[in-house]
Amino acid sequence: MKNIYAELLTIGDEILYGQIVDTNSQWMSVELNKVGIKVIRKTTVGDLEEEILTAFAEAEKRADIILITGGLGPTSDDLTKPVLAKYFKCGLQMNEEALAEVTEFFVSRGRELTEINRQQAALPTACEKITNPIGTAPGMWFNKGNKVFMSMPGVPHEMKRMMTEHVIPRLTKKYPLPVIHHKLIRTIGIGESFLAEKIATWEKALPPHIKLAYLPSLGEVKLRLTAMGDSLEQLQTETNKLSESLKNHIEQFIYGYGEDPIEVVIGNMLREKKLTLSIAESCTGGYLSHLITSVPGSSEYFLGSIIPYDYQIKMRQLGVKPETLEKYGAVSEPTIIEMANIVRAKFNTSVGVATSGIAGPGGATTDKPVGTVWIAYSDKYQTVTKKLQLSKDRMINIRMSSVAVLNLIRQSLPKET
Amino acid sequence: MKNIYAELLTIGDEILYGQIVDTNSQWMSVELNKVGIKVIRKTTVGDLEEEILTAFAEAEKRADIILITGGLGPTSDDLTKPVLAKYFKCGLQMNEEALAEVTEFFVSRGRELTEINRQQAALPTACEKITNPIGTAPGMWFNKGNKVFMSMPGVPHEMKRMMTEHVIPRLTKKYPLPVIHHKLIRTIGIGESFLAEKIATWEKALPPHIKLAYLPSLGEVKLRLTAMGDSLEQLQTETNKLSESLKNHIEQFIYGYGEDPIEVVIGNMLREKKLTLSIAESCTGGYLSHLITSVPGSSEYFLGSIIPYDYQIKMRQLGVKPETLEKYGAVSEPTIIEMANIVRAKFNTSVGVATSGIAGPGGATTDKPVGTVWIAYSDKYQTVTKKLQLSKDRMINIRMSSVAVLNLIRQSLPKET
Repeated sequence: MKNIYAELLTIGDEILYGQIVDTNSQWMSVELNKVGIKVIRKTTVGDLEEEILTAFAEAEKRADIILITGGLGPTSDDLTKPVLAKYFKCGLQMNEEALAEVTEFFVSRGRELTEINRQQAALPTACEKITNPIGTAPGMWFNKGNKVFMSMPGVPHEMKRMMTEHVIPRLTKKYPLPVIHHKLIRTIGIGESFLAEKIATWEKALPPHIKLAYLPSLGEVKLRLTAMGDSLEQLQTETNKLSESLKNHIEQFIYGYGEDPIEVVIGNMLREKKLTLSIAESCTGGYLSHLITSVPGSSEYFLGSIIPYDYQIKMRQLGVKPETLEKYGAVSEPTIIEMANIVRAKFNTSVGVATSGIAGPGGATTDKPVGTVWIAYSDKYQTVTKKLQLSKDRMINIRMSSVAVLNLIRQSLPKET
Repeated sequence: MKNIYAELLTIGDEILYGQIVDTNSQWMSVELNKVGIKVIRKTTVGDLEEEILTAFAEAEKRADIILITGGLGPTSDDLTKPVLAKYFKCGLQMNEEALAEVTEFFVSRGRELTEINRQQAALPTACEKITNPIGTAPGMWFNKGNKVFMSMPGVPHEMKRMMTEHVIPRLTKKYPLPVIHHKLIRTIGIGESFLAEKIATWEKALPPHIKLAYLPSLGEVKLRLTAMGDSLEQLQTETNKLSESLKNHIEQFIYGYGEDPIEVVIGNMLREKKLTLSIAESCTGGYLSHLITSVPGSSEYFLGSIIPYDYQIKMRQLGVKPETLEKYGAVSEPTIIEMANIVRAKFNTSVGVATSGIAGPGGATTDKPVGTVWIAYSDKYQTVTKKLQLSKDRMINIRMSSVAVLNLIRQSLPKET
């Protein structure tokens, strides 16, 4: 089977000026890879006719599929549409279906359709119109021999809808593509190099048609198996078997499979076990609660937090004993134990967790350098603590401490309730 | 003066696969624009010799400066260095200075220098070595006629140090560049289109050598004036005058100039006025506290928060009156007033602020749709409330409510204390 190649072409001065980060092309790469289309190049050019024409011609030489984003706005500096018409040697003509759609878009929002917006429905005669279900600029699909040029809006959610609903299904129909199956294995609490060491023999034994990628982020590492073949069922069986055998090496670090991040997994565990959670977070300053509450429906299990940032607040509002704070300091095991136990009792929840540490850059002492963080978990069966020694960077410390607490919850929740 | 053009070339399969987002090229664009170098194209190719050679040749035709990132790691799939040697028709030779630097890098960290790492100091003979102060792969600077090829590591903080300390100074010395001066004006609490309307006459009167860019993000819009000319002093005077006259149109929305975001500006105001802050945040779930505590030194003015996510916690832990909650509901003006006043009293701070709303997707009622949010500010002189009607998107609502509170603090802090 011949490889099918795609080139991603982004058009817009705002990207060359650095006014926005192009996140579209990363998302598109992932989606194309999922269906077996290989991205061989990404190109960004500005709003200049000659530049765009050159980029079209270059891309056509290299790729089977040229996916274009941007430059479809209604103003005069948006050139993609007229330049496409020029490249395909055709004129622009009002597309009645597109006009009906753009009219409906404005009418349904109680807004007036201006002439400028009306013109968005005028399309090169050589293209097929692709519906934009949530915006005013239609997509344009051009066939040229066995190649495809597809132009989409640069607005990320419009592009994503169009890709998912129209472009990917059409491409997989048009081209003979291998069957590709991905399996994502999410690990937490172990660094990339240690992980690689632990699974080295397993990785070496992977068959040639199954590739492994390490996708690290702060506090966790995702492993992605990509299998290529003819039968989806067989690939699923193979990757499931491999991910089962992976458990022999790193079971305690695996927290899930698929798209759900750790805060969603924790939420599901709490919901299933009918447990509730409260938080006393000091050095993480609200970020841990934010992770928990970023999940829709978290109010089912998360009751609330206290952020006792100040020493006095730790005593007077939370209720840590002055003797404890005086004798051991705020960043200490005895203090973190009290914090987790007290917040659990005060908020009357099944589980209480706590953080206290030195996020930096200030606040360090000789025996407690920046990056020293204590975390604790408390339920009716046990109180668990952990000391972390993190980085010099405030934001990294805040993020990593929060993720470490989520992992501590995962490890410590009672099996039965 | 002739324009000086740059092309940014990123090398690496991991970007084509969508495993990482290329944020380097956005940062580089901004830095190059600042010194008057125009980025005309961004290209990403994979780890394939032929692809890289083609990209070099194409870029050389278009640009004066070719800035290359990535593909400098020690493993065999990193091709940038050997391909550069091939392109410049020269061999690789051990660079003694680079070897000393990479050795020092390992020795100072108590790590052993492996042969693979040692080979990172072997460089194409046609290049000048550029020191990498925080990594092991040196930069490589090639002159070709009046053009420059410069290769840097893809690790963002290594690339940034190298650009700032070596590449930008060398480029500004080598090429005759216009003097460029930027002035950033930060606004909050007004949308982009309303802002554009309010400043339309002012914008129209801008002289041709001064350009205006709108840089919107959630809850705020930054305006950037870019002035180009011969004398920095004159450009500074001109842009200062313009930003003064801008105040006639939108003074109440301007919260600062330069790089400090709103949470830093609020922090500075509190510190200068010797005021302290506490927070009762419900629908923002910790994000508001996180913004405040993301600022180093925030413990000087921020004492703590309570996140009464659950109805019972609002009563029992915070102390909102049951009658108020019953009669008006948690998302109401009477409740938000109590929340702000109570947290200020309990935490004994100069200022108390509060949020309560329906972040979504659940929790809506007929008269309180998703996106309904009440915020309040309280100090010893006044209590100020505001009702927001935001979006259907949970994360947008959380972020915009938090920024709205920061703006409310900015507007409401006492002039004298």
